[in-house]
Amino acid sequence: MKYGRTYNFSAGPAMMPEEVLEEIAAEMMNYHGSGMCVMEMSHRSQVFQQIRDEAEADLRTLMGIPENYQVLFIQGGGTVQFAMVPMNLMKNGLACYVETGVWSKKAIAEAKKYGQVRIAASSADQNFSYIPDCSRLDIPENADYVYLCENETINGTTWHTLPDTRGKTLVADQSSMFLSRPCRVEDYGLIWGGVQKNVGPAGMSIVIIRKDLIREDLPAFVPTYLSYKTHADAGSLYNTPNCWAIYCCGKVFKYLLRHGGLEAMAARNAEKAAVLYDFLDQSRFFTGAVRKEDRSLMNVPFVSPSKEQDAAVVAAAKAAGFDNLKGHKSVGGLRASIYNAMPKEGVEALVAFLAQYEAQHL
Amino acid sequence: MKYGRTYNFSAGPAMMPEEVLEEIAAEMMNYHGSGMCVMEMSHRSQVFQQIRDEAEADLRTLMGIPENYQVLFIQGGGTVQFAMVPMNLMKNGLACYVETGVWSKKAIAEAKKYGQVRIAASSADQNFSYIPDCSRLDIPENADYVYLCENETINGTTWHTLPDTRGKTLVADQSSMFLSRPCRVEDYGLIWGGVQKNVGPAGMSIVIIRKDLIREDLPAFVPTYLSYKTHADAGSLYNTPNCWAIYCCGKVFKYLLRHGGLEAMAARNAEKAAVLYDFLDQSRFFTGAVRKEDRSLMNVPFVSPSKEQDAAVVAAAKAAGFDNLKGHKSVGGLRASIYNAMPKEGVEALVAFLAQYEAQHL
Repeated sequence: MKYGRTYNFSAGPAMMPEEVLEEIAAEMMNYHGSGMCVMEMSHRSQVFQQIRDEAEADLRTLMGIPENYQVLFIQGGGTVQFAMVPMNLMKNGLACYVETGVWSKKAIAEAKKYGQVRIAASSADQNFSYIPDCSRLDIPENADYVYLCENETINGTTWHTLPDTRGKTLVADQSSMFLSRPCRVEDYGLIWGGVQKNVGPAGMSIVIIRKDLIREDLPAFVPTYLSYKTHADAGSLYNTPNCWAIYCCGKVFKYLLRHGGLEAMAARNAEKAAVLYDFLDQSRFFTGAVRKEDRSLMNVPFVSPSKEQDAAVVAAAKAAGFDNLKGHKSVGGLRASIYNAMPKEGVEALVAFLAQYEAQHL
Repeated sequence: MKYGRTYNFSAGPAMMPEEVLEEIAAEMMNYHGSGMCVMEMSHRSQVFQQIRDEAEADLRTLMGIPENYQVLFIQGGGTVQFAMVPMNLMKNGLACYVETGVWSKKAIAEAKKYGQVRIAASSADQNFSYIPDCSRLDIPENADYVYLCENETINGTTWHTLPDTRGKTLVADQSSMFLSRPCRVEDYGLIWGGVQKNVGPAGMSIVIIRKDLIREDLPAFVPTYLSYKTHADAGSLYNTPNCWAIYCCGKVFKYLLRHGGLEAMAARNAEKAAVLYDFLDQSRFFTGAVRKEDRSLMNVPFVSPSKEQDAAVVAAAKAAGFDNLKGHKSVGGLRASIYNAMPKEGVEALVAFLAQYEAQHL
């Protein structure tokens, strides 16, 4: 690869498009004649306001976000969203969560601090290797919302069909699949995504929230920063935002628009994932960890015949220029994260490497 | 200036050292042979761990942080710290705050959500243009801590002597003076600073906390992210941190060490500020807004004879290449923020411009 860059299969932070990084480097000493780097700009200045506004406008175009939804840029990542969602959306004090892996479990644990949590469905019985049937969920009449993690980064599952929430507000953590495929925003009450997986640098979540869900009458203990209304009323500029992340994400949004938008990304991602899954399906050495129909197109966990071999493959891969292939400690094995910015050539090269490794070690 | 850069007097985000920006640009496509940009690195990777560890070690060297203090990198800026401080440090439910301007008022308002706040002293009577006498504060025996904003960015005051807290824990918001002068960390229980003023890019606060103040037994409503213990136990890697800010701040720490550390910065800052204050003191057109003995070396608010003239000066200055000189809306007038990274030549050039403006308009 150019610049001696490596194929980086990290689950996040992860690869960004090379042409975006080139633009950012070129603008470092003086952004568009402003006389300063974006990191040095007052967040109240006109030049930064334009960067922020273009980022939001481009995201709205990409996802087709309707007028009655607000876009918020909030610091603190998923850990903060796990608290903000129940703090802001629990009115009756009851919410349904679908338990599909590490990240939904974390969301559940945090929500329990603020109200009652009903596990509407779970795939814990098979180590979260599938998405449970959610066509007929038992959702109480007074449930405030139904929450799911739409792509479990660690477990490698994804929702290809959304559950029937029986009219209740759907809340989705889209962190590791954000902008990887078209999304009907109208189907959700709230979508949030940490941007450090499929978009830009760590340090920011994007929240897309239907305006009627933004409340004023929150419990007194809710910190100002953790109220969606704080950010909504101020256009995400109540306090100094992560300006750099907004700038970099804005660059990625423009990159995605230039390259055909989310339809094109979805096609490209399906093609890329097929290269790896097709290999795993025919391999006698490596095995995919997830039920076929629930496979993520972003995060592909797989195992070799033993833990010792897993570690040996990761080390050999790293030496061959394929970085961050070790699976999460809670699952083990290997994991290849192949987000938007991973080129198809990267997946093909990995498959070639794995095939050769298999031939040598079977 | 090189690269057509401007003298940027923004109160924050603000100027960063040019040589730091050059290094960052040079490492954008491939950091030290890692094959990736810092924005693309797994926060669990060895290469990032080293960046994080060096940043902390260099900060410890710069400030002389004792072993019994922990350094934390936390997202969310001041607004999050305003809540974290009382949430984590109020055991008896009572804290003393010194009210010296906009930022201490915000801290006070947030603290009132979590307990009783006693205003130990205030300079509200003269629009926060001075630091109140705090040599004999009336601090209740059961007060959990005494809080102050050590440099009020908007009002332009700074504490040249710390108050006598009668043995109670001192908590200081050092955001707009962080690393501008030597600091005896032992005098404080907790120091926090948003880095986007005097250090690096927006999106992170650095918290320096004495270890015995890190508590486990917090109220149930405290979000996981807002517990200092969460971050302390995980070396600020409980969740994905603002990796980019850690990296950039680390670069600035190395820059400060290369250039003589905080003693050298303090001398340089005093010299720079004197250029501007000496001009203001002899001017018959411009007037400094703060009592002499409490003047900030970082943020210098001043006024012209009228609001109309203030606006005209700001516009003329901008046209002449001096950016972001407008005072905060709560104070009006003009404000020049002259943080570590503002070269002395920038202040001299501003003074030359103001002198010429005065000659033409008096």
